[in-house]
Amino acid sequence: MGRVTVRRPVLRVTENGSRTRPDTLAAEEPLEIRIDGRALSVTMRTPGNDIELAHGFLLTESVIADREDVRSARYCDSPGPDGRNTYNVLDVLLAPGVEPPDTSIERNFYTTSSCGVCGKAALDSVRLSTRHSPAQDPLLISPETLADLPDRLRAAQKVFDSTGGLHGAALFDSEGGLLVCREDVGRHNAVDKVLGWAVLERRVPLEGCVLMVSGRASFELVQKAAMAGVPALAAVSAPSSLAVELAEEQGMTLIGFLRGTSMNVYTGTHRITERTPTSVS
Amino acid sequence: MGRVTVRRPVLRVTENGSRTRPDTLAAEEPLEIRIDGRALSVTMRTPGNDIELAHGFLLTESVIADREDVRSARYCDSPGPDGRNTYNVLDVLLAPGVEPPDTSIERNFYTTSSCGVCGKAALDSVRLSTRHSPAQDPLLISPETLADLPDRLRAAQKVFDSTGGLHGAALFDSEGGLLVCREDVGRHNAVDKVLGWAVLERRVPLEGCVLMVSGRASFELVQKAAMAGVPALAAVSAPSSLAVELAEEQGMTLIGFLRGTSMNVYTGTHRITERTPTSVS
Repeated sequence: MGRVTVRRPVLRVTENGSRTRPDTLAAEEPLEIRIDGRALSVTMRTPGNDIELAHGFLLTESVIADREDVRSARYCDSPGPDGRNTYNVLDVLLAPGVEPPDTSIERNFYTTSSCGVCGKAALDSVRLSTRHSPAQDPLLISPETLADLPDRLRAAQKVFDSTGGLHGAALFDSEGGLLVCREDVGRHNAVDKVLGWAVLERRVPLEGCVLMVSGRASFELVQKAAMAGVPALAAVSAPSSLAVELAEEQGMTLIGFLRGTSMNVYTGTHRITERTPTSVS
Repeated sequence: MGRVTVRRPVLRVTENGSRTRPDTLAAEEPLEIRIDGRALSVTMRTPGNDIELAHGFLLTESVIADREDVRSARYCDSPGPDGRNTYNVLDVLLAPGVEPPDTSIERNFYTTSSCGVCGKAALDSVRLSTRHSPAQDPLLISPETLADLPDRLRAAQKVFDSTGGLHGAALFDSEGGLLVCREDVGRHNAVDKVLGWAVLERRVPLEGCVLMVSGRASFELVQKAAMAGVPALAAVSAPSSLAVELAEEQGMTLIGFLRGTSMNVYTGTHRITERTPTSVS
């Protein structure tokens, strides 16, 4: 293991000329997740926290609800070209009574809709599969606390500093306290690792928490947050139209363009408190 | 159609207070691609250029080699909840003799490797499936031309300006001339649209071209470029370790952190010319 970063030479070209120097890259390797011996998915991820990644993936794909639904999760003995274990194949055994996932393409949308695939069908699918109600969550959070989160996320991203190439995701409480931060070359993987940590810590549903991500807020990230019962998702960049629709439908608070001291609140504005008046001295 | 952006109200929170105003979001909708009537994939994309997206996806998944391999590609009549066509299902009929893809999970890696899934197996898989040799491409490009590409990409991104939420991908020639630019909420979709355009224009392999992307360079983006015979990939942000390994293995030039007047050249440095000496007046 320990392959979170890889060192390589790079030609650095600037106005003052070119020179070769060592560079640190974020590691990317395939991870195959097997359920009861059958391949379920192959994702390109940064090695590390793979057990969390698998739990988060299975939670947000509606396969498991808590850690008791997983009997065991361990690396297979999967030798690479050099004969050594690649640690790139994870074998998950589900607890008795837990249904293995349907891996057909159609599963995501057609289970809830006889019509053509559309945004409405996608929203319906999440509503039927999540076991939590973020809409009921009494979370209140101030703009000042929210404005601090991007810096706190960045400060917690250990590998980003050396590579500049990793997405970050983190859970915070309503006071801005950090619960967990994870990094990955893939946006979804970073979120799956964070939510998988919560599964293993028996913290799902994640009441009173804010999930902060370093990039954009897509439909799939809101979906993952909803599946884990997170009442608020905050992103440094823009949300998509369907991300906003899903957050509204789920009663979640969705914040975008969280930069400096300002932000856009797309849904669930009732959870944002008034800004504390600045005392004039 | 015309659903590239969606208008919604947003609560804008700044140090000077909060107010509700209209906002423009990048549209995100599911697109299902069917091959000969069977669902192959569902991707979350920004509507528009869907025929290109399908061609690019099928090219980079090694299903087709050129536009003659597709007999027809058209929207199904897929009514949404309001009874109107969603334009979210695309039916592709392959030409006689073109094999439909194997949709099993294992296809990507296990076809070339009896060992555990690993970076090496992923590289092998691309080498065996691409029909082009970017390594032979005589492209030469100057640092000055490369340094201009991010601004040219941004200038060509029509929807980004209004939403701030779209990934961009564009093809340039060795003089920095723009061939095509496409945007999407998904990084891979923007690249698939660009490469699908090239398929429809009969420009594959894309000799002498640079593919520029607005974000990071992952393994999958290098893979897509290799499948289209692109000799150089340039990214605004960092590449991953496996992206660099694949570019090296394919003889491609991979440029990262292309910002301002400087850049990192990870592989294929022989294609970067000397900087034009600045004349002293």
